[in-house]
Amino acid sequence: MTPILAKADAAELIVAARIRKKLTWADIAGEIDAPVVWCVAALLGQHPMSAAQAEKVCALLELDGSVAESLQLQPARGLDPEMLSDPTIYRFHEALAVYGPALKELIHEEFGDGIMSAINFKVDIARREHPDGDRVVVTFDGKFLDYRW
Amino acid sequence: MTPILAKADAAELIVAARIRKKLTWADIAGEIDAPVVWCVAALLGQHPMSAAQAEKVCALLELDGSVAESLQLQPARGLDPEMLSDPTIYRFHEALAVYGPALKELIHEEFGDGIMSAINFKVDIARREHPDGDRVVVTFDGKFLDYRW
Amino acid sequence: MTPILAKADAAELIVAARIRKKLTWADIAGEIDAPVVWCVAALLGQHPMSAAQAEKVCALLELDGSVAESLQLQPARGLDPEMLSDPTIYRFHEALAVYGPALKELIHEEFGDGIMSAINFKVDIARREHPDGDRVVVTFDGKFLDYRW
Amino acid sequence: MTPILAKADAAELIVAARIRKKLTWADIAGEIDAPVVWCVAALLGQHPMSAAQAEKVCALLELDGSVAESLQLQPARGLDPEMLSDPTIYRFHEALAVYGPALKELIHEEFGDGIMSAINFKVDIARREHPDGDRVVVTFDGKFLDYRW
Amino acid sequence: MTPILAKADAAELIVAARIRKKLTWADIAGEIDAPVVWCVAALLGQHPMSAAQAEKVCALLELDGSVAESLQLQPARGLDPEMLSDPTIYRFHEALAVYGPALKELIHEEFGDGIMSAINFKVDIARREHPDGDRVVVTFDGKFLDYRW
Amino acid sequence: MTPILAKADAAELIVAARIRKKLTWADIAGEIDAPVVWCVAALLGQHPMSAAQAEKVCALLELDGSVAESLQLQPARGLDPEMLSDPTIYRFHEALAVYGPALKELIHEEFGDGIMSAINFKVDIARREHPDGDRVVVTFDGKFLDYRW
Amino acid sequence: MTPILAKADAAELIVAARIRKKLTWADIAGEIDAPVVWCVAALLGQHPMSAAQAEKVCALLELDGSVAESLQLQPARGLDPEMLSDPTIYRFHEALAVYGPALKELIHEEFGDGIMSAINFKVDIARREHPDGDRVVVTFDGKFLDYRW
Amino acid sequence: MTPILAKADAAELIVAARIRKKLTWADIAGEIDAPVVWCVAALLGQHPMSAAQAEKVCALLELDGSVAESLQLQPARGLDPEMLSDPTIYRFHEALAVYGPALKELIHEEFGDGIMSAINFKVDIARREHPDGDRVVVTFDGKFLDYRW
Amino acid sequence: MTPILAKADAAELIVAARIRKKLTWADIAGEIDAPVVWCVAALLGQHPMSAAQAEKVCALLELDGSVAESLQLQPARGLDPEMLSDPTIYRFHEALAVYGPALKELIHEEFGDGIMSAINFKVDIARREHPDGDRVVVTFDGKFLDYRW
Amino acid sequence: MTPILAKADAAELIVAARIRKKLTWADIAGEIDAPVVWCVAALLGQHPMSAAQAEKVCALLELDGSVAESLQLQPARGLDPEMLSDPTIYRFHEALAVYGPALKELIHEEFGDGIMSAINFKVDIARREHPDGDRVVVTFDGKFLDYRW
Repeated sequence: MTPILAKADAAELIVAARIRKKLTWADIAGEIDAPVVWCVAALLGQHPMSAAQAEKVCALLELDGSVAESLQLQPARGLDPEMLSDPTIYRFHEALAVYGPALKELIHEEFGDGIMSAINFKVDIARREHPDGDRVVVTFDGKFLDYRW
Repeated sequence: MTPILAKADAAELIVAARIRKKLTWADIAGEIDAPVVWCVAALLGQHPMSAAQAEKVCALLELDGSVAESLQLQPARGLDPEMLSDPTIYRFHEALAVYGPALKELIHEEFGDGIMSAINFKVDIARREHPDGDRVVVTFDGKFLDYRW
Repeated sequence: MTPILAKADAAELIVAARIRKKLTWADIAGEIDAPVVWCVAALLGQHPMSAAQAEKVCALLELDGSVAESLQLQPARGLDPEMLSDPTIYRFHEALAVYGPALKELIHEEFGDGIMSAINFKVDIARREHPDGDRVVVTFDGKFLDYRW
Repeated sequence: MTPILAKADAAELIVAARIRKKLTWADIAGEIDAPVVWCVAALLGQHPMSAAQAEKVCALLELDGSVAESLQLQPARGLDPEMLSDPTIYRFHEALAVYGPALKELIHEEFGDGIMSAINFKVDIARREHPDGDRVVVTFDGKFLDYRW
Repeated sequence: MTPILAKADAAELIVAARIRKKLTWADIAGEIDAPVVWCVAALLGQHPMSAAQAEKVCALLELDGSVAESLQLQPARGLDPEMLSDPTIYRFHEALAVYGPALKELIHEEFGDGIMSAINFKVDIARREHPDGDRVVVTFDGKFLDYRW
Repeated sequence: MTPILAKADAAELIVAARIRKKLTWADIAGEIDAPVVWCVAALLGQHPMSAAQAEKVCALLELDGSVAESLQLQPARGLDPEMLSDPTIYRFHEALAVYGPALKELIHEEFGDGIMSAINFKVDIARREHPDGDRVVVTFDGKFLDYRW
Repeated sequence: MTPILAKADAAELIVAARIRKKLTWADIAGEIDAPVVWCVAALLGQHPMSAAQAEKVCALLELDGSVAESLQLQPARGLDPEMLSDPTIYRFHEALAVYGPALKELIHEEFGDGIMSAINFKVDIARREHPDGDRVVVTFDGKFLDYRW
Repeated sequence: MTPILAKADAAELIVAARIRKKLTWADIAGEIDAPVVWCVAALLGQHPMSAAQAEKVCALLELDGSVAESLQLQPARGLDPEMLSDPTIYRFHEALAVYGPALKELIHEEFGDGIMSAINFKVDIARREHPDGDRVVVTFDGKFLDYRW
Repeated sequence: MTPILAKADAAELIVAARIRKKLTWADIAGEIDAPVVWCVAALLGQHPMSAAQAEKVCALLELDGSVAESLQLQPARGLDPEMLSDPTIYRFHEALAVYGPALKELIHEEFGDGIMSAINFKVDIARREHPDGDRVVVTFDGKFLDYRW
Repeated sequence: MTPILAKADAAELIVAARIRKKLTWADIAGEIDAPVVWCVAALLGQHPMSAAQAEKVCALLELDGSVAESLQLQPARGLDPEMLSDPTIYRFHEALAVYGPALKELIHEEFGDGIMSAINFKVDIARREHPDGDRVVVTFDGKFLDYRW
């Protein structure tokens, strides 16, 4: 009996295969007909995949069954603390530091006492062309949940 | 000579006046013709206002000149660490923990090595109706900055 | 214009009045016909009260209008870090350290990938008599939310 | 002489065997006639098992004697800090942040100065059907211990 | 209505009165016929006193009723983090760092899986004369609690 | 040349051998005629042993010379931070949080300005029978050291 | 006898006076014929000023003698931790995270084993015009100190 | 399939080869015609190299293709926390602690509300001869970015 | 009844009086015939003074009896964490980071297993003239304490 | 190509060889005619050695060339955080906590605004005989550096 391949190790193999095979993340997401942000998050270890999805991804990337098994495992979610200081990720946290309390005020004003769910939730990313330089547009879309006893 | 009223203290007075006068944040933003997220962030201490903006806000809320002076001060930006555990704000951080590395991968794939600016940046919030319960939709829109020596 | 009384300060006044008037928490919860855990949490600053509730509580405790105004304010929720080392509260955290991963396994086995909501959620406390010494029984009851894109 | 297999390593092997053999946690708990939450906690390394229990579990899962030896070891209990940010576990901590001080007040009011034991203690989890979505119900049941010199 | 005097503030007044009146802690403990370690801990804010005890202490120290009221309040227990680096207190922590795991081994060997209660617990301090220099002898005496489901 | 076996690794081998040979800690301490708490602490890596002691222990446990060499090494003392949350060890820290400042007051009152040494120091553990449940009695006995310039 | 005005409080008064009198930092530095970065650092509490400097600054800003006394006090230097998350300051830390180890390699290659002094040190800031947007140019200039026994 | 060599491991091999081949960092930077600070940062893992650059470096240092592959990987940027206490790196942080708020004031005075970019940014290091001992001169040169909604 | 003046507040008054009266620390230490490092540490709140010492110091500095009372109080010793980043103090910590393990090795080689006492301990500071610049010489002189059961 | 042996690993081999060959640190320092504290610090990884020094040490200890190569590497200096709680090292930090601010006052009084260099710096350790028990005497001797723009 051997342990199931850790999701972090599976992710390293997936990243290596994707680069060496010159595939885009969109290629992989297309193969399993899944939203691309969800798919990348799953491959990096943040969502479990179904057996069918995991096997298709491994076939495309020519990875063996241990990776497919790992992809189906229920994850323990969270961010590697070292990633917090990466500038690409840090800017999102900085934006929340500056605008988080304002978003809280406006959520409560519009919806009442509650939260935007991070579970019944999706996120999308797009490129918006702009004459001064193209822009990254990230949309967070979560169900409002009101405090309900 | 007295110190300038601290922005945190000004924000407390603004919150109190807004509630007692039964004004919405949108009412205040409308008064100065500013985007509402920007306006709330500024009133909570994260952006400096122009003298004209500060004075209009104080007139509307019947606050004295010390608040207007404070609103024009250059801020030291950041999040009160106690706010991090508030559920409404925490869900945004949780979403970044789950999706941050995926967003990083997709930004680099689409744009190359660089970041979404948090300075040349705007954020918007909207309500999206949905039969299973309405949704909070938050959009981050920042200029892509590539690493350029 | 004065700031709204901080919820922590309102809570101190409520605690003092409750003790001096020899009222139980159940007396106060009964006055507003609310579940007792919800009511105590609200009076300690973790939930907003309606104007009617806040005014009834203040009438019962003979507290002035500034307390009632504070009780209606939207809270920034969270635990004072100093409270974490209080033995009565620490035991709950210790129980989660020992049983948290087991509960996670069993939630996923029974419900699939998702969480117990802490928003659509209620908590109850009861005394269970036992010949070896009575027992504290605390029940967490939250809606299951599945990860849904 | 070799060290005893670490409990974390034993747990990984148990998780792998359980999944590959398509057994539920309840199947395993049933095999040793133990409460399921206790059993999962023990298999994840938080409680020592008796020799008989450990051997039955290993026979069912076809794991070798080094796992059975590890399961009998006295544990050093505690939570892997990385697990704190997993949403399924975090929601319990959030609930304690919001309701912990209220529970403390009510324990003291009902029982006097003391704590709910986390040692003479059991925890149960159940599914409660509900038309708006089924609910996770977790019950903490611990002996009250009064401060006694 | 005023808040109840904080226990930390009551403790400062008690320390000041004790010194100015040239009383020992044993004098105060004698007045209420209580163990001296318990009594000092209570006066520093770690245990609630009965009304009779609190009033006797305040009469002896000529402190007013607000101190007596504070002494009866249920405490939130814990150590001021600044005190951890005080050498007199730090040496106890250092001793636990060096001997804690050994004590854990020996408790489990002698008693089985469980803990020394810190609630059904008493502590005593004594001076032991010794030709090489007198010794501080501190005795921790707590009921053994076995893990019992 | 190979490094000396790390004390943590030696301790794992000692624990494994002790369990497999069904020896008590007292058996081992008896073999080298040492106090049992000192002996367990030394074997877990907190005190250096003499060559004679180390060799006797290894002979009894049938461990090879690399363990004996490691046991003689001068240790870097301290507690593995993960052990702090183990309930058996945590209760000692909780007791110090509650009673530490009281012990400090009483040491200064009885002995003057100084500390209980943690170096010229011994600790003992005993079982005290009690009709309500036996008790763990731990005694710290350290030389008083006064601040002396 | 009153304490000397804290440097943080003096800095708040200086900032308020500078803004209300519509003076630039360069105006103040010019008044005492000092480099502008040094002067601002000193006025914010990081360097002691001579009596003559302090008095000239207070005369210009119409601040009283307590500010002048404070400015001459020897400082305890360091950064308010809240300032670390301000974006303007954070970018400097991010640059050091990315380039710090490279600078260390190059200092050692060019100068040998040692450091750039932060004491025998000056820093300058300038605006460099650029068609794509003007640039902030900050120069750190410190004496090399080699490790010398 | 094997994972891509981690950038930290690639950096160790590059450092070893550079020393054993008695090459300077300038030699390597010259080989790929890149600014030396940029080049060292890239080789230590903070910037991706183009395939041509990575292959030239590996040819010069006689390192195999796995290093070249690693050098092209998109990095997760940040500082190893252990490096913060290295004196050569710490002095830069100390300088920012002392002068950071002053730089912030002067950036805002000269440029308005915004930051020095750490992305559109370059850094240079030079030796400046000086009779009292040569000096390390480090220049940060980043585009000013104004807060723009 | 009022609390005893906090030692931190007494220290601020002493520092203010010393500066305004243009006295050196040596003047004050001379007045009470005490070693100067001990005396400054005591006046900053790290050692209790005798009544005679405290009164002489207050007479010299023309401070009132509340300061003298505070100086006699038993201190809770330790360093204000903000002081750790002050460069003058940080250099001592850096020296211990670099040389601490070497000093540990040499203490054990020369004296055996034990420590340099920080209680039976004195510290002195002197100026040593040197043609390349005068030197600060600080001597720590503590009794060796061997681990003795 | 292999990485250079890490300094921590080289130090482990040196410590093992020193003990097995029954050499003192003074023996090793004598072999290379270096001050003993400097030499031990260098061998533990805090200073680079010259090739001649490194080779002489390795010849004496019969260690191979990979150790000699490692000893010449430029170190990243700092203390393993686990060592901070070792009592022999902790006492130095405790002494700085108690006397650090006093040393700062006296350095500024005697030398003006500046620091004792930790780079142009040496440290010595000696045994001083004393009838009450011999003493450890540690001398820090660093050049004074004044803040000079």
